[in-house]
Amino acid sequence: MKNIQVKGDRLWDSLMEMAKIGATEKGGNCRLAASDLDKEGRDLFVRWCREAGCTVTVDKIGNIFARRPGKDNSLPPVMTGSHLDTQPTGGRFDGVYGVLAGLEVVRTLNDAGIETVAPVEVAVWTNEEGSRFSPAMMGSGVFADVFALEDIQAKQDVDGKTLGAELRRIGYEGAEPVGKPVKAYFEAHIEQGPILEAEEKTIGVVTGAQGQRWYEVTVVGQEAHAGPTPMARRRDALVGAARMVQAVNRIGLENQPNACATVGFLQVSPNSRNVIPGRVFFTIDFRHPQDEVLTKMDRELRDACSLIAVESGLEVEVEEFWYFPPTPFDEKCVAAVREGTKLYGYEHMNIVSGAGHDAVYMAKVAPTGMIFVPCEDGISHNEVENADPKDLEAGCNVLLHAMLERAQG
Amino acid sequence: MKNIQVKGDRLWDSLMEMAKIGATEKGGNCRLAASDLDKEGRDLFVRWCREAGCTVTVDKIGNIFARRPGKDNSLPPVMTGSHLDTQPTGGRFDGVYGVLAGLEVVRTLNDAGIETVAPVEVAVWTNEEGSRFSPAMMGSGVFADVFALEDIQAKQDVDGKTLGAELRRIGYEGAEPVGKPVKAYFEAHIEQGPILEAEEKTIGVVTGAQGQRWYEVTVVGQEAHAGPTPMARRRDALVGAARMVQAVNRIGLENQPNACATVGFLQVSPNSRNVIPGRVFFTIDFRHPQDEVLTKMDRELRDACSLIAVESGLEVEVEEFWYFPPTPFDEKCVAAVREGTKLYGYEHMNIVSGAGHDAVYMAKVAPTGMIFVPCEDGISHNEVENADPKDLEAGCNVLLHAMLERAQG
Repeated sequence: MKNIQVKGDRLWDSLMEMAKIGATEKGGNCRLAASDLDKEGRDLFVRWCREAGCTVTVDKIGNIFARRPGKDNSLPPVMTGSHLDTQPTGGRFDGVYGVLAGLEVVRTLNDAGIETVAPVEVAVWTNEEGSRFSPAMMGSGVFADVFALEDIQAKQDVDGKTLGAELRRIGYEGAEPVGKPVKAYFEAHIEQGPILEAEEKTIGVVTGAQGQRWYEVTVVGQEAHAGPTPMARRRDALVGAARMVQAVNRIGLENQPNACATVGFLQVSPNSRNVIPGRVFFTIDFRHPQDEVLTKMDRELRDACSLIAVESGLEVEVEEFWYFPPTPFDEKCVAAVREGTKLYGYEHMNIVSGAGHDAVYMAKVAPTGMIFVPCEDGISHNEVENADPKDLEAGCNVLLHAMLERAQG
Repeated sequence: MKNIQVKGDRLWDSLMEMAKIGATEKGGNCRLAASDLDKEGRDLFVRWCREAGCTVTVDKIGNIFARRPGKDNSLPPVMTGSHLDTQPTGGRFDGVYGVLAGLEVVRTLNDAGIETVAPVEVAVWTNEEGSRFSPAMMGSGVFADVFALEDIQAKQDVDGKTLGAELRRIGYEGAEPVGKPVKAYFEAHIEQGPILEAEEKTIGVVTGAQGQRWYEVTVVGQEAHAGPTPMARRRDALVGAARMVQAVNRIGLENQPNACATVGFLQVSPNSRNVIPGRVFFTIDFRHPQDEVLTKMDRELRDACSLIAVESGLEVEVEEFWYFPPTPFDEKCVAAVREGTKLYGYEHMNIVSGAGHDAVYMAKVAPTGMIFVPCEDGISHNEVENADPKDLEAGCNVLLHAMLERAQG
């Protein structure tokens, strides 16, 4: 098996070709889910897959499956994939790498004339990022029965357009029902963190995913004129929210190692220079690999927000918006990834995924594994996101091995 | 003189009639400067003034002057006025009271058949609030030569529309040059603060206005994925900005009595739930009656922001955007207001204006005084803003006296 290798140059060229669609001035990508640019990216992928001999189907939530037949097409497929949508100021590799690494595996199998026992499929999951339509990971979430199809189709962007209508508009509301048996699922992804680079490892063997708790917090005070309202009489919602942002950060720092705590979105009302803010809305993203620590962080958050509200004469509402328990991956899939790294001689380490990935939902309905490769300075969700072509090639070789291993048995 | 009294009911009815234009669901008003609703409010005022026998002129920046002739019309007018534009979620009295109190003075003079020596004018100043077009107090600012006419005409709202074009569109770009001699200027206004109510006084004799320093602050960190980026490696612009919001509040608290410090506007970028904020922009509004304290607050602000930026690995830019020194009012005008309160037997106290008012710019070019009346709970720039009809009547009687006193000499 050692002789079979993907073509790193071909993979890189495909990545750079895809990156032209929705390219931003600072070298990143903006392909929001179900936008015209998302359609362009999907069209390019579909064309490439058909050129590689795959049959392409699309399900009702817009997930695309490019299938390379096996010897026994009654078997469920060994699947890989990720997403083509990006953050508003996203990078060229987040998601796209996993999709095009899957395509490169298919191309490599074609070049080598290998017929697998089980069929092989490359999936593109709809709206992984959750930027235009919230929450994130919608396509894989419906596939894994985490979300109801109708609920997700009805989700609206800020302009009130629904995901369902937008998928129809761009021609990616398919006819297939959502969900089917999958023999094994693998996903290759940039790490989106700095650990592999710091440890000088080429491959992260992902053993599972962190748990996540997402919150929406509303702080209500009293809007009033900024000039004549004495400091002592104010009920300034932003001053209270600023303390809560500090508290979130402190909770993250106090639950090391591995805790992450972020306020990513914050909105002030009425947001006028000379008006004391009467209302602030913000979101919180907590992550940790152990559920009991997440529970502790939840308690610390609620205590801190209540205390700050009482001390500041404010009202606060902390609503848990999304909860995702820590997810261990399938032992055999993880082993197949680890074997691949050894076969090709790559430096590797075990790692826990801090980000949500489609693989985390897929783990609910199929044996699942993930492969991480380093990204420059650990930076992702940013236009400067970058990765080394050699590392991307290495991750793709490991993916090739793992898929072959699971598709032959 | 004691026998001449304004009609409180007529004043109240006019206020409530005007409040129907741009009425909000929560009982407030939204008449943004140079909007269709602003035009409606202006049209109503102009109609009422003509019905009261005034001649109406409009200058090139949209300031309206309703003139009641005197015996000697070669004399500069004794003027009163304020503004009809409101905050996006503003109240029914802020500004409007000063304009309609002026109209009520004219109506009362008509009823009593009094001919003043100097003419009397009621002014409506364009865009006092500064909500749609920034900065605030544009009409009186151009009148007082603080701003150049062309600069202010070219100011844009968020949609890129200029104030000049919008005034033309609503029919309030007048033919008159901006600025003319004024014998004395008075402005009646709700206090927009809680002091009169707390001290149980009907009238605030305003001796001058606080100085103001307005800033724009930009904090730059590093945007990155909220999941896999360890806490210790983050450069979170919002966590830094939250500390700066706290510092602004602390500076306000530590410079009592009389200091005010507010962050009213804050914008996070990219503002996405699962992205560490890379950039935060916010505004600061500092006020104090003594210039040396404002200078001290400026120094404390710059020190605090620099320190926080260094400690957090962030970049910060603190730009002073507007500076207005403390403004004492004219001794004779202040005395005329005080005499009026004594004549009618109202409980009164000296007070310093915390808010910017058109009177503060007018003080640069004319002897100026102001009259404050209480507002409920000291709340303004809010839809629940409220005032007692009896207090509004009292303030209008004091205005009548002060204007008569200055218009007869």
